[in-house]
Amino acid sequence: MKFNNRNIQIGENVEIGKNVKIGDNTIIYDNVIIHDDSIICDNCVIGEPLVDYYHNQDYTQPKTIIGRMSLIRSHCIIYAGGEFGNNFTTGHRVTIREYTKIGYHTSIGSYCDLQGKCEIGNYNRFHSYVNIGQKSKTGDYVFIYPFVVLTNDPTPPSNTLEGVTIGDFSQIAAAAVLLPATSIGKHCLISANSVVGGEFANNSFIGGAPAKRICDLNKAPLINRETAKRHYPWPYNFDRGMPWQDIGFAKWKNKQ
Amino acid sequence: MKFNNRNIQIGENVEIGKNVKIGDNTIIYDNVIIHDDSIICDNCVIGEPLVDYYHNQDYTQPKTIIGRMSLIRSHCIIYAGGEFGNNFTTGHRVTIREYTKIGYHTSIGSYCDLQGKCEIGNYNRFHSYVNIGQKSKTGDYVFIYPFVVLTNDPTPPSNTLEGVTIGDFSQIAAAAVLLPATSIGKHCLISANSVVGGEFANNSFIGGAPAKRICDLNKAPLINRETAKRHYPWPYNFDRGMPWQDIGFAKWKNKQ
Amino acid sequence: MKFNNRNIQIGENVEIGKNVKIGDNTIIYDNVIIHDDSIICDNCVIGEPLVDYYHNQDYTQPKTIIGRMSLIRSHCIIYAGGEFGNNFTTGHRVTIREYTKIGYHTSIGSYCDLQGKCEIGNYNRFHSYVNIGQKSKTGDYVFIYPFVVLTNDPTPPSNTLEGVTIGDFSQIAAAAVLLPATSIGKHCLISANSVVGGEFANNSFIGGAPAKRICDLNKAPLINRETAKRHYPWPYNFDRGMPWQDIGFAKWKNKQ
Repeated sequence: MKFNNRNIQIGENVEIGKNVKIGDNTIIYDNVIIHDDSIICDNCVIGEPLVDYYHNQDYTQPKTIIGRMSLIRSHCIIYAGGEFGNNFTTGHRVTIREYTKIGYHTSIGSYCDLQGKCEIGNYNRFHSYVNIGQKSKTGDYVFIYPFVVLTNDPTPPSNTLEGVTIGDFSQIAAAAVLLPATSIGKHCLISANSVVGGEFANNSFIGGAPAKRICDLNKAPLINRETAKRHYPWPYNFDRGMPWQDIGFAKWKNKQ
Repeated sequence: MKFNNRNIQIGENVEIGKNVKIGDNTIIYDNVIIHDDSIICDNCVIGEPLVDYYHNQDYTQPKTIIGRMSLIRSHCIIYAGGEFGNNFTTGHRVTIREYTKIGYHTSIGSYCDLQGKCEIGNYNRFHSYVNIGQKSKTGDYVFIYPFVVLTNDPTPPSNTLEGVTIGDFSQIAAAAVLLPATSIGKHCLISANSVVGGEFANNSFIGGAPAKRICDLNKAPLINRETAKRHYPWPYNFDRGMPWQDIGFAKWKNKQ
Repeated sequence: MKFNNRNIQIGENVEIGKNVKIGDNTIIYDNVIIHDDSIICDNCVIGEPLVDYYHNQDYTQPKTIIGRMSLIRSHCIIYAGGEFGNNFTTGHRVTIREYTKIGYHTSIGSYCDLQGKCEIGNYNRFHSYVNIGQKSKTGDYVFIYPFVVLTNDPTPPSNTLEGVTIGDFSQIAAAAVLLPATSIGKHCLISANSVVGGEFANNSFIGGAPAKRICDLNKAPLINRETAKRHYPWPYNFDRGMPWQDIGFAKWKNKQ
């Protein structure tokens, strides 16, 4: 049904790998590299020129790289200068501004807005409507839920940009606001609608406005409904799409 | 001005009723039924294939049904497997994932994201940016305001999906987070930005983080500006687009 | 790379100024005026007809005016009846409903949804996902951050619309909910995720749910990272894109 090669526009100096599918009405601007076996769906823009393009006749378009086996769903806008690892997946209508780096096996949900100049790790999963400010950094296996915002300006408006950092395996529940320069350790859980500032150690269960460390997450009474035991650290209880799928986290971890 | 029949793509086995208008650049995928007198505006995708389509050569496209007199505004993406009642209306850029059931006379606002496998009743009105998780259920005459999220995973990330249930006539004010398995009775009002978990009886006025039952909504000092009397239960004071319009709620209710 | 004049649709009675660029697949409906040197990017809709268009054969399309040197990024939908000053800028996928008035040098971020019949001042900057209800009014130099909602119905649902008013230079941090009829003075700062109702004097630092005046903003210990001095009133410390850029706020103010 899809991929009829209607009204596709390809710019100059574009490298398209083997077995790549490109949807109708999609525009690939100059200097884009799409690696093998990737799917770019309908109505996408890949390599959107930076704002400089509109005003500067000497504009040079930075390179954009999409890794192998990626699936970019319809109506996404991905600016030039981005670098995306293998098995990168998006929902619909994602906006990713310039010079964003995203690792492999990461999935960015519908309506997410990444403001550029940020670094997202491997195996991240962002649900819908996640807003990532410039200079944000996430580790690996970080999941962020809807309406979460990672801010960066401590005294708005100002020229200071202090990004948020989130450690491996941490979970940021819906509608949490992460204040500028916040640093979240590994294996943390931030409760829904929290307003979080400051530095938090590994394994913190964090909540409130302003948010505090409630307790050690591994000791929190958060019970997995299937096993009726403690759910955290979650990798022992969830493996869908993770590298330890069908192996088990303990075994996989020992091999690392 | 609209409906010039430019660049419309219609798949196989599509049934289009009498007097249906389809906007420019709209794609109707296979096995879609659009009933009489409906309007599908520009740049929509109806019957978007499920993720399985990309990987499975034996993919079968489920049926999608759009009721009579529907108005789907531009840039919406409606996945296959959905069933939408008569007089279904949307704003712009709505995403409705697979196997969503929506009743009649329901309106879904711009940028809403329905994650699929949920059941929305009749005469619902969702404002912009409402995020509905899988397994959510709403009754009839439910209004949901911007940035509300109905979550479903009690221990993120996990394989457990426990949807939210909202009873007839209930109102969920802006930016409220409804935690997994929350059950809201009929004729409730949830305050803006509340974080709501648990079970709430009919006629509850609910607010806070974590949210509590503040009082019986019908006894809350929430005054209608026009009548200077208590506004709730609201159907006695608001009828625009409701089945009791010009009849009055009391009379209409007696006839039910 | 852009502006190839592919698939552009221009309605009747459209006036397009000198040196205006229009992107591919963009639709300009009837009675739109675009002043000199403006750029309308790809896939935009300018002068989107009002809902009446679908049902009323005698529909008359109101005029839409886009000021000089504007930059409207791709996938925006701007309804008919709007009036936008010079140097108007948008992100992607903005929706601006009918009869919205916006001053000059104002920027509206990606995914913003302005519900129409509102008045936005000069030199405003809205970040992504700002939801502006009908009857809202902002002064000049107002900055609004992601996921902020300006509501208007004090007893939802009702026929009462009481818009929010925000004074010059005020800053509304991420995810704040402004309740109907809220009035914010000049030079205020509202903290992230606050729920704000009532009337607030000039120079208020406002926060909490329900929000209170914390203190005089100019006396709040909010330190500019570069100068190590108090950041507010911010115009003395930030000038990018503001009319006092390279002049200094003090000098500029004296000239007013």
